[in-house]
Amino acid sequence: MKEMTLHVDAGGGYDILISPGLLDEAGKRIRAALPMAKRLFVVTDSNVSPLYGARLVASLEIESFEVHTHVLPAGETSKSAENLMALWEWMTAHGVTRTDAVAALGGGVVGDLAGFAASTVLRGVGLVQIPTTLLSQVDSSVGGKTAIDLPAGKNLAGSFYQPSLVLMDPDTLATLPLPVFMAGMAEVVKYGCIRDADFFDFLAARPSREALMADIGRILYTCCDIKRQVVNADERDTGLRMILNFGHTLGHAYELAGNYVEWSHGQAVAAGMVTAARLGVELGVTAPGVPEKIESVLASLGLPTRIDCGFSYIEKALGLDKKGAGDKVTLILLEKLGVVRPLKLPRAEVLDVLAKMEGR
Amino acid sequence: MKEMTLHVDAGGGYDILISPGLLDEAGKRIRAALPMAKRLFVVTDSNVSPLYGARLVASLEIESFEVHTHVLPAGETSKSAENLMALWEWMTAHGVTRTDAVAALGGGVVGDLAGFAASTVLRGVGLVQIPTTLLSQVDSSVGGKTAIDLPAGKNLAGSFYQPSLVLMDPDTLATLPLPVFMAGMAEVVKYGCIRDADFFDFLAARPSREALMADIGRILYTCCDIKRQVVNADERDTGLRMILNFGHTLGHAYELAGNYVEWSHGQAVAAGMVTAARLGVELGVTAPGVPEKIESVLASLGLPTRIDCGFSYIEKALGLDKKGAGDKVTLILLEKLGVVRPLKLPRAEVLDVLAKMEGR
Repeated sequence: MKEMTLHVDAGGGYDILISPGLLDEAGKRIRAALPMAKRLFVVTDSNVSPLYGARLVASLEIESFEVHTHVLPAGETSKSAENLMALWEWMTAHGVTRTDAVAALGGGVVGDLAGFAASTVLRGVGLVQIPTTLLSQVDSSVGGKTAIDLPAGKNLAGSFYQPSLVLMDPDTLATLPLPVFMAGMAEVVKYGCIRDADFFDFLAARPSREALMADIGRILYTCCDIKRQVVNADERDTGLRMILNFGHTLGHAYELAGNYVEWSHGQAVAAGMVTAARLGVELGVTAPGVPEKIESVLASLGLPTRIDCGFSYIEKALGLDKKGAGDKVTLILLEKLGVVRPLKLPRAEVLDVLAKMEGR
Repeated sequence: MKEMTLHVDAGGGYDILISPGLLDEAGKRIRAALPMAKRLFVVTDSNVSPLYGARLVASLEIESFEVHTHVLPAGETSKSAENLMALWEWMTAHGVTRTDAVAALGGGVVGDLAGFAASTVLRGVGLVQIPTTLLSQVDSSVGGKTAIDLPAGKNLAGSFYQPSLVLMDPDTLATLPLPVFMAGMAEVVKYGCIRDADFFDFLAARPSREALMADIGRILYTCCDIKRQVVNADERDTGLRMILNFGHTLGHAYELAGNYVEWSHGQAVAAGMVTAARLGVELGVTAPGVPEKIESVLASLGLPTRIDCGFSYIEKALGLDKKGAGDKVTLILLEKLGVVRPLKLPRAEVLDVLAKMEGR
């Protein structure tokens, strides 16, 4: 595949580059985007570091960056306030200046934490996202949301902070365990659902990792292009951007119910999209047959399409949803594949319909 | 005095209101600026809380805000990462939503810490600055800089985040100890030095707290107006805003030398401005006689005009100055009173001239 470039207007404006083997050219590309940077603070985790850390550092050192590397334990628990403080202290101890930059090499946990640290140390230094998972390539590395988790919940502290550059090397997807790859596919399918019926059909015709990887360039490009359009229109998440949450409110309930261990974010979102589509049919918003089509694609990818969870988790996810205000909750529903419709409804009414669907 | 209003364009745009007795109307003013806010998280400190906490809370409760109050120990050490985390946990435990707001009641420490917490909890909630010291009224509450201190130094983590409203009640200045009031005057004099020779003369003609308080409205308005113009032109501190640092680089050296205990920020800035003016004369940039005029005004206010410190502190302040990049440092010098000129010089040359001035 040829190199592809997407330009995002948000923040100071930045490029998303997609190309196999890009990791070995990271130094050159970062130098072009951040000509003043002297120090590069590489944040990665214990899974990714042994696979790709040395190649990134070598490519940076060719460009004479002063490279410092911080390896986090892999896993969601690393997205903590304690690690944010540790990154601040690490960078300031190495004399970070405002023209230096952070490079986040890894999945969403690394990108969210490192992005938050980059946005706040010295009130903001350069940030390069180098996502190595499918989920982070199509979702968290684009759009400028950074976050850590707090005892009260996930992503409760963070910032809106656009990177200076996003480098996506699809070759890094080869080392993902199959369930992790497929969890990323849940978000890929989501883009088809909310914005692009042709893309949905394209995915439906490729029900295996091999078939998907043969067209991974188009897949990454299409997802990032949709996300870019939405982010350009709503950088600070006050309106349109909520359509990206299709399947996520109910997904949160499933994640909560499984204590964030039993179901990955992607698995929970997969089942959440099916429930949201069924809810839409029940409310007369979504065309009949849509839930079954989504279910079929997700099932062919080995993703869960239903997750049983105590009703209290659904109540909690609807009630504590920080997108909601007051007694109403905004549901992200589909009219049909590719066409989304946000709908504000009384929380109690939504709970009633869901309870009825579950036969309670 | 009549109520005065200044509008700042930065961020979403916000008003600075200046009026005696405004504290008792805070609830009404905040309700008008933040019609959607349900919860108000008041952050204050152990000095300010007994003086003004109850009045603020009463005024908020009249407007039916759900008020939560967090009282920090007074003093710079409260501006810590630990307290930032404590504020995050406190707000999320009380169910903060994105339409709620933080009210910072106190001086710069409270405003900087609470502002940082407001900018990051849920990626940003409303923020109302209610500065109660002269320093925070003329400086830190306007312009959108938030920060905490780290082990490596002051203000090393933070954000640019504009408030939704700034409420200044000059009556709160009555309870300031004299040295704290006068330390704030150092920043007031700074505005005259860099932008307004008439205002400098106006201050020179009022060499006592009583005389200054008789015209405090004009003083607050003029300082905030200058700061607003500079911030509107350079919200993220990449250029013009550096003129606000007149006296601050050397001031930092003095603060460091006194371990942040011996000299207050204002005292250190006072002496720093005199040294910067003398340095400007030495470099042929500043008109002769300017240092003496600044010295005279500051001395009449009981502020230090010279502080002896080990030369290593000056080297450190120049070298670690995060406004500097590479081997050069940008000095903020005066051409004459009211006219500032930033000048980029090799660090070594600046150190040489300073050493010569000190007779070393």
